[in-house]
Amino acid sequence: MLIVGELINTSRKPIKEAIERGDAAYIRDIAVRQAEAGADYIDVNCGTLIHNEPETMAWLANIVREAVNVPLCIDSPNPEALEAGLKLATKGRPMLNSITAEPDRFEAVLPIVKNFKAKVVALCMDEEGIPSTAEKRIEIVRKLVEDLTAAGIEREDIYIDPLVKPISTSDQAGAELIAAVGFIRENFPGVHIICGLSNVSFGLPNRRVLNQAFMVQLMTVGMDSYILDPLDREMMGFFYASKALLGKDPFCTDYLKAHRRGLYRRD
Amino acid sequence: MLIVGELINTSRKPIKEAIERGDAAYIRDIAVRQAEAGADYIDVNCGTLIHNEPETMAWLANIVREAVNVPLCIDSPNPEALEAGLKLATKGRPMLNSITAEPDRFEAVLPIVKNFKAKVVALCMDEEGIPSTAEKRIEIVRKLVEDLTAAGIEREDIYIDPLVKPISTSDQAGAELIAAVGFIRENFPGVHIICGLSNVSFGLPNRRVLNQAFMVQLMTVGMDSYILDPLDREMMGFFYASKALLGKDPFCTDYLKAHRRGLYRRD
Repeated sequence: MLIVGELINTSRKPIKEAIERGDAAYIRDIAVRQAEAGADYIDVNCGTLIHNEPETMAWLANIVREAVNVPLCIDSPNPEALEAGLKLATKGRPMLNSITAEPDRFEAVLPIVKNFKAKVVALCMDEEGIPSTAEKRIEIVRKLVEDLTAAGIEREDIYIDPLVKPISTSDQAGAELIAAVGFIRENFPGVHIICGLSNVSFGLPNRRVLNQAFMVQLMTVGMDSYILDPLDREMMGFFYASKALLGKDPFCTDYLKAHRRGLYRRD
Repeated sequence: MLIVGELINTSRKPIKEAIERGDAAYIRDIAVRQAEAGADYIDVNCGTLIHNEPETMAWLANIVREAVNVPLCIDSPNPEALEAGLKLATKGRPMLNSITAEPDRFEAVLPIVKNFKAKVVALCMDEEGIPSTAEKRIEIVRKLVEDLTAAGIEREDIYIDPLVKPISTSDQAGAELIAAVGFIRENFPGVHIICGLSNVSFGLPNRRVLNQAFMVQLMTVGMDSYILDPLDREMMGFFYASKALLGKDPFCTDYLKAHRRGLYRRD
């Protein structure tokens, strides 16, 4: 089980503003708090600042690396930004987020994955975009796993992201994703399965409850990695509760630790 | 998806006391509130009052039947109490809770199931008690389904209760139950799967979070019926959220209704 802390992302206004005023202390604090809350990786994404993404990525990665001892997840579609971030992600093995099955992107990003010995998030999409059928989704996953392992990437360094769609636009989107995760877990032993949760609830009220329930559902069918806000105590509480209920927490030790850390206090 | 409201049970002190003082209004109120909150059946259990269980069952069943329009779930190991309750459970098709694979109990309860055309909760236990292995559990389920259908009970009137054990005493108990539910769903199409949730969290703190997460997990693998407290708004909120995420709520209609009914307000 692995948690990637998602908060350092310029699509969040406070992060964007902190970068604009060069506020390293703010970034540092968000990094430290995520690590303290249990994040195994700290995601760094400045994709909305396309005019100087590589420079901003380097600036952010440097601050985060100095602030925490957990490794970084360098998050961009842009190979230059990935490279700029990974150069500074020198604590532990970094994660690269993300490669896809689009031929150009695959070719451009693969050498970076190899060069930095990075773990890699592989998004389930190709040149035609996000698949609309279960068959196509599986076909892309198979291609990603085959092409990555053929290139020498170990299965356990691959994090398949099946890409969550909102149930508000297709009420079968959740069920389809759950089926896909179950299929991947069954047919591609060794690979990890990851996703960002919040897209599933887009357009609906009480998004936190939907996101929490979806995390529990996905863990039940074999997802083992999550890109989420580790400062969301309720979400983290459900994470540890689910793990214990699934028999992945010997003697409920982590659950009881989470309890003592106050994750279940409602105040 | 079916919800059995569990509150009218003499193991709960306020219910026991209401019965002792003959407080029909209190019982009526609990019945009405459960039905309004979405219970499809109202469970009636006075098993702790063994000295006059059939009389008490009849008294309770009569009150509940008059109070609500949803049918009753008559809950007892005692054939006389079952019969006394079912005689008064005249609105809709009643549910009998429960039969087991213990030969004496099976033989004594089966005629009552048939006589009252009741839906029946079948507990996964036999003369040796609650099974300790997955194989034994499946063997009992198979026997229950075969013997009940051989006796003319339709599969869709059978509610298998795989019997939840606490993860505090065996940290694999949750995982084993989830696997069992998945197996039953796969191998016995048509039968329903039901359980009471709260036993899973016995002996641990924050039981409500564990119970909620367990409900979400069980629904993911195919459980479709729950014995729970429908007045627990958070639990009911997760019930509707899970259903929507699993694609069992066209256009998220029930979820949005639950939202408008205030299930997700935290106050």
